[in-house]
Amino acid sequence: MLTDKVNLAEKLTKFDEYWAPRTVATLNGQDIMVVKVRGEFVWHKHDDTDDFFLVLQGRLTIHLRDRDVVLGPGEMFVVPRGVEHKPVADEETHLVIIEPTGTPNTGDAATAVPRRVI
Amino acid sequence: MLTDKVNLAEKLTKFDEYWAPRTVATLNGQDIMVVKVRGEFVWHKHDDTDDFFLVLQGRLTIHLRDRDVVLGPGEMFVVPRGVEHKPVADEETHLVIIEPTGTPNTGDAATAVPRRVI
Repeated sequence: MLTDKVNLAEKLTKFDEYWAPRTVATLNGQDIMVVKVRGEFVWHKHDDTDDFFLVLQGRLTIHLRDRDVVLGPGEMFVVPRGVEHKPVADEETHLVIIEPTGTPNTGDAATAVPRRVI
Repeated sequence: MLTDKVNLAEKLTKFDEYWAPRTVATLNGQDIMVVKVRGEFVWHKHDDTDDFFLVLQGRLTIHLRDRDVVLGPGEMFVVPRGVEHKPVADEETHLVIIEPTGTPNTGDAATAVPRRVI
């Protein structure tokens, strides 16, 4: 389906909750999402998908079991499937993330936030 | 495989050619690529994949058969599979694009540039 272009910053003005991704487009069965984060997320992993993070604003630390990856604006990282990680942001941070549609954000459907499209 | 983080602007300093994407990471069998473009690309389509464009710098016009989509920095668009499109940039423009690994950039293996990883 042909949609409109997406201005990422404009989409990020439309909500305030943290750790609650919004889908702004789909790509081959994946959701392209924007999300605001601040504070600590849970340790988790995705057995069936890699996990893409791109920082637009702020700073994101992705704790891995053996090291930390610190991302500023214009920096990205892919957490490979099966790798445990814990995202943390000391300040409000804006991200683009990409996951197959239906992937639970916590790695567990029981605790995941619902899919929301804007 | 665990890799380092990717600074997109830094990767874009490493080459000058236009319309020659560089793979900076992989995500579920797709290449995350940066590319510099200027001038006109060919009309083409991909029958098997959607086509993701995110502008980092500059301005990209994606001509479609029925309209144009004009993207500035921080704006993105997904061209659905099978939809003819012709990207044009009047000035040097820097993009992130995402396609399944092996997708010919022109839609035709005979005219596509080779995959290059940086």
